[in-house]
Order: sequence, then structure tokens, then C-alpha cells
Amino acid sequence: MNLLLLSNSSSDAGYLTHALPWLRETLDGVKRAAFIPYAGVTVSWDDYAAKVREALDGLGIEIVSVHETANPTGLVGEADAVLVGGGNTFQLLKETYRVGLVELVRQRVQDGMPYVGWSAGSNLACPTIKTTNDMPVAQPPTFEAFGLVPFQINPHFTDAHPPGHRGETRRQRLAEFVVANPEMPVVGLPEGTALRVASGEMHILGAEHALVFDPTSPEGREISAEEIAALAV
Amino acid sequence: MNLLLLSNSSSDAGYLTHALPWLRETLDGVKRAAFIPYAGVTVSWDDYAAKVREALDGLGIEIVSVHETANPTGLVGEADAVLVGGGNTFQLLKETYRVGLVELVRQRVQDGMPYVGWSAGSNLACPTIKTTNDMPVAQPPTFEAFGLVPFQINPHFTDAHPPGHRGETRRQRLAEFVVANPEMPVVGLPEGTALRVASGEMHILGAEHALVFDPTSPEGREISAEEIAALAV
Repeated sequence: MNLLLLSNSSSDAGYLTHALPWLRETLDGVKRAAFIPYAGVTVSWDDYAAKVREALDGLGIEIVSVHETANPTGLVGEADAVLVGGGNTFQLLKETYRVGLVELVRQRVQDGMPYVGWSAGSNLACPTIKTTNDMPVAQPPTFEAFGLVPFQINPHFTDAHPPGHRGETRRQRLAEFVVANPEMPVVGLPEGTALRVASGEMHILGAEHALVFDPTSPEGREISAEEIAALAV
Repeated sequence: MNLLLLSNSSSDAGYLTHALPWLRETLDGVKRAAFIPYAGVTVSWDDYAAKVREALDGLGIEIVSVHETANPTGLVGEADAVLVGGGNTFQLLKETYRVGLVELVRQRVQDGMPYVGWSAGSNLACPTIKTTNDMPVAQPPTFEAFGLVPFQINPHFTDAHPPGHRGETRRQRLAEFVVANPEMPVVGLPEGTALRVASGEMHILGAEHALVFDPTSPEGREISAEEIAALAV
């Protein structure tokens, strides 16, 4: 498989700018990419597609959004790559099921089609969406997602906690996931990082360490490049 | 109906301490209360029940947790009140459906049994759990909940946002809910506040203002006591 799973899209440099070198590598040889905009809730899908086209203009790839065609499965079936944008993970999964794209994307990516996801799009690459940070504003038919990697990702991982706030920290939320789902490790991706899967190997991109959450360390620990590599099967 | 819906349980004063005067009023005359501990994930239900008994010791009420009996519906059917504790909203709803308590609690509370919820327990009093802040670590059969009030609550409402974090703010998350569910207003309850429904009237408790999120103010605005009162039908 050929995957690029980004924690986030925006940085001080601009929209997806920090990821351009990684996108260039992942999408090498791609002429036409299908974009899945369904995570956009407060942005229209037209505007979302335009924003992504502008951000990736320099790559020389034709980007067609699945909402721009009457035949989304035909588009994904013939595209050279799929890009899954961030926003609300619950709406993204609900709509992806509604138009019948879940099994098709899974099959094509397992057959080698490049997959790029950011934020909610990285959540969808996992077995389920159970480690999303998003509010469940829409109800998908199931939490099961593409299952392209054999572990969960928590994008936008942060240790920060607003002073005076009595809600759970991110580590506490992920510890709950580990107790409820002890068989499934979680990789926490801090802002600016990404996972790259290619040629059967996985490594982390970006300056920060990734963290892993599992029954031996339910509140998380930093993991090495070797441990990251061992997570991908 | 007789409802006390708290934003949070803990404060600098201790567990549920800030809410004791409100609990005393809501549970006046109650001899035996059923406690629903299912939101506890990283705390055992035994420990959770013990913690609540200790916190409410001064009220002189016998508190029995639904996990301590082989007959949870019998317990709730005969109790004088129901207390629904905070933790993970998704697991709380999943387990409450599993043991067959959803319709029973709804009926008894609509018939006048006092209902006290905090955090996830306040989420469950709403039509759905779509405005929880929690991570979806468990999949309930549906997002539909008790529907005791005709609006959504967002507990632990905060304006704070960790510096450098690129994820959504709480206001942005709730704005997504409003776009996806324009017919359903949301009340944001800051820490330390609660909603009290009694004798057909609703008011806010605690020092802070509540906020409302709806299509006219998708990112929220403070609401007055009169507007709060008008939300309850």
C-alpha cells in the first residue's frame, strides 16, 4: 500500500503547505485524483474542493471531487489516487457509506492506489473512527471505517489542557479507548506529523515524536522509529 | 418533570460538593435512588458507586447502583430517583440500552421521578448524544437518548483553546452541529453551572451565563434567564 496519513492540514505556512514534499512523493505519477470532501460541514463541498485544488496546484494533478459527479464510484474506480479531507469524521463516514464508497476505496487502496488523508481523513484509514476528536454531529451506520492500517490514529494529539477545565485530557480519553478496546493500539500524531506507508514499511514524518497508547501504557509513551515500523503489518 | 442537569462533577471544593444544595432540593423526600455507573471506563463501577455514596452521604439517601443487582429494571422501576454519572457518554448509552433501561428511565422521569445527571449523564437527558465532548470509544446502537428536554446540552463548555493547536474550537464543533442539525438548539453549560427543571419551569444554576447555539448564532451567544425559561416546553 501507499498511504500518507497527516495529523493536520493547516500550519503557519498555509493550507497543506507543510505536507507538499510528502504529497509529491506519495502522488508521484498520479494524473487524476478523486477528492472526498464529505467531512466539510461549515464549508461547502464546492469551496472545499476549490481550496484543495489551489493548495495542490503545483503538483500538476487533476483533482475531481466525488460530489461533482453523478457517479462517485465510477470516479473513484478510475482515479489514480484518492484524497480524503479533514473536518467532521462522523459526517465523513456517514456520507462515504451513503454513496457506497467504503468497500471500493478499501479495495482499490489495498490494490495499490495511493491514499492521502488528513485529520478526519486519517481517522477513516483506521479500523474504526473510535479515536476521532470530533463531535458526533451525524450518525453513521457503523463506526467501522476503511481499515487500511491495523491500528488506530489520534490526529491533532496534544498534551495541552485549558486551565480550570474539568473535562478529560486527551491522554485520559485515549486511556478510556485502551480500556474499552485493549486489543487495538493507538498512535497519537502531534500537529505537523504524518505516517507514511510505502513498500510494506511505515515511518513517521515531521519533527515530533509519535506516541503509542496500549494496555502497557494506557496514557501513552513516545515511540521510536523501530516501534513505528513494527506496527505496520 | 424534576431534573437537575449538571455541567460537571468535580471542582476545587471536591466531588459533587458544589452541587450539594441543588441535589438536596431536587432529591427532597427521596429515600432510595438508583445510580447508573456505566459511563465509568477507567474506574470500576464498584469504585464509582462508592465514590458517589461518599459524596452524597449527608443527604441520607440509600444509593444502589444498577450494576449491583441482577435486576436493573426492577431497581429503577421501584427507586424514588435516578442518578446518572459522568464519564464516557458513548459507553454510558451503549450499556444503558444493553440492560434495557432507556425506555423505563424515560417513562419514569416523565411521570415525575427526579433525574440527576452530571456531564455524560446530562448528555443522556437530551434527544441525542450528538453534543457530547467524549471520544466514541464504544458504539451504541443509536445516538438517540432519553429526550427529557427538547434541546441539546454541551457540558464543560469552554472558550479556551490550547495555543498552537490546529483542531477545532468548541464553538466550531458546535457550529458544525448547528449546520448539520438546524432544528435543534444547543445549550452550552460552562463548568460550575447546571440546568434545573421543576414545576414546568427551567432556570440556570451557578454563577456563569449559559450559551445558546442555533442557526441565528451558530457560534453561540449568552442567553438570559428569560430565554432559558422559554427553551423548556
